[in-house]
Amino acid sequence: MIETGARGDRASAPARAAAALAAEPIPPPLPSRVTIREVGPRDGLQAEAPLPIEARVRLLDALSGCGLGKIEAVSFVSPRAVPAMAGVAEVWAAASRAPGVAYSALVPNRRGAEAAAEAGGFASLQAFLAASDGYNRRNLGKTVEESVADVAEVLEVGRDAGIPVEVSISSAFGDPVEGEVPPSRVVGLASRLTDLGAAGVSLGDTTGLATPTRVWEMAVAFADRLPGLALNLHFHDTRGTAMANALAALEVGVTELDASVGGLGGSPFAPGAGGNLATEDLVAMLEDMGVATGVDLGRLLSAARLAEELVGHPVPGRLLRAGPRTS
Amino acid sequence: MIETGARGDRASAPARAAAALAAEPIPPPLPSRVTIREVGPRDGLQAEAPLPIEARVRLLDALSGCGLGKIEAVSFVSPRAVPAMAGVAEVWAAASRAPGVAYSALVPNRRGAEAAAEAGGFASLQAFLAASDGYNRRNLGKTVEESVADVAEVLEVGRDAGIPVEVSISSAFGDPVEGEVPPSRVVGLASRLTDLGAAGVSLGDTTGLATPTRVWEMAVAFADRLPGLALNLHFHDTRGTAMANALAALEVGVTELDASVGGLGGSPFAPGAGGNLATEDLVAMLEDMGVATGVDLGRLLSAARLAEELVGHPVPGRLLRAGPRTS
Repeated sequence: MIETGARGDRASAPARAAAALAAEPIPPPLPSRVTIREVGPRDGLQAEAPLPIEARVRLLDALSGCGLGKIEAVSFVSPRAVPAMAGVAEVWAAASRAPGVAYSALVPNRRGAEAAAEAGGFASLQAFLAASDGYNRRNLGKTVEESVADVAEVLEVGRDAGIPVEVSISSAFGDPVEGEVPPSRVVGLASRLTDLGAAGVSLGDTTGLATPTRVWEMAVAFADRLPGLALNLHFHDTRGTAMANALAALEVGVTELDASVGGLGGSPFAPGAGGNLATEDLVAMLEDMGVATGVDLGRLLSAARLAEELVGHPVPGRLLRAGPRTS
Repeated sequence: MIETGARGDRASAPARAAAALAAEPIPPPLPSRVTIREVGPRDGLQAEAPLPIEARVRLLDALSGCGLGKIEAVSFVSPRAVPAMAGVAEVWAAASRAPGVAYSALVPNRRGAEAAAEAGGFASLQAFLAASDGYNRRNLGKTVEESVADVAEVLEVGRDAGIPVEVSISSAFGDPVEGEVPPSRVVGLASRLTDLGAAGVSLGDTTGLATPTRVWEMAVAFADRLPGLALNLHFHDTRGTAMANALAALEVGVTELDASVGGLGGSPFAPGAGGNLATEDLVAMLEDMGVATGVDLGRLLSAARLAEELVGHPVPGRLLRAGPRTS
């Protein structure tokens, strides 16, 4: 189900495009401020060999001092399923939480949500499922419908505990098992989730299949059907498009992006590696463009160096190698 | 000389931006077709340990069969200065040239230009200099003024031989020695060069200092002062912004980009590595967006695999690891 028509038309046909290209070039508008949700302590470390509790606390504390608006701090998943996330309660209890940061916890189900609510201190819980059965089955061992039921239980726990719940929809730009995932299906799923009480939605490009036109199509579809919804986008650089997709997202009014310190969560060294968008690379680009992030780049680079030291291998972020622009 | 005012205003202030963000998002227009100039055989291999003549011919021949519009095939520089480019006449004589490809040769001065004209078969010659004295002195050991005189001699040779000459202006988005390079200076230099007979200009982001707003500012400055000029942009991924910059360029009407097969010309492994934009990553993104490149992605991936095999180490291109989107 390839929607080449839609993309082809947008790129080639409209008179608007031809007129714009013939006339004085007009750069797209950008938001003046963007919120970056740091996912390194969770999405990043989850792909690594398990680190000691104290190392995870050190990384979290370093990130808390960077001016990031949001941090996905921990994950209340089964330590058998994700050994790198074992000891989550200890990590969270030992972390020095900064007052200006909205911390979230990833929770797979009612049990995880209850544990997070019990631990306390989270601005939101993050539930998750995939946009299509193929990847959902591979990743979670059940259908999307079955996962919607799990998410509904998390939403119930959040409502009872007074904690907003956002939902991550993975493989939103394409499914490595099923192939195409039409934006209409993603919007339909998001609509059901908001009807169930979700406070926001994060769309994950889990295997790096998004391109700027797909981002634009998705954002337009959401603006059309769910105009008030808080939308976060989560890009992986698997095919080298993460930063271009981030730019594309800002151009159509998205103001929250996920990123991972050092690009933790994937490596350019391994075949098919995930490769999160590196937070420091994103911050450096945005600040140079006059888009405020609130982040102290020097501190963030220190946190990225710490992350690299802790995981014990080179991380894929570029700025850590090249250094920031100095003038 | 930081132009934060200009960038800050564009990103945050204009009522246009606010209005656009509040309303239905409008994706930027894109050209329907883009020309990619493959620079791997020259800019790519020049950073590597010298390869045997036959290996360089094999890579060039593989690239000639990919549908690329332009290939920077060889460089007539001193073999003492750039050992990897020694034996250029043999490489070029042995290459199977495809009829649809416009091949160019990089030439540093009159002597190089004469050697290229003598060799024959080039659609254009590529002269070069930097936008500012700092990097020009470091790279070429002379001032920009002195390099303009060299370029003028190349232009003269081209005119006499009936071969168009284009000029690469490096460090156009920032100079690692001097810092800021105002777009007005780059446009001024390009204007002088076109007055001297240059058929086109390529702006090089030599050390990865460009960001999308800087690309927009530059393109607007060129459209304003040199509206008819053929403009090529050459991005390095040193700070992770190359693909976003490529997108930004297309959004304001640029239709020719440089790229290097496999991302040859830099490595994410070495500190400060150049890191060319990988041709196959760019082609995959553009074709998915409905922007035609004329390139056969399967053949290009084979060429990238060959490039990796020939240089004997992993190349930074992502698609070679992850594979293309298959649906």
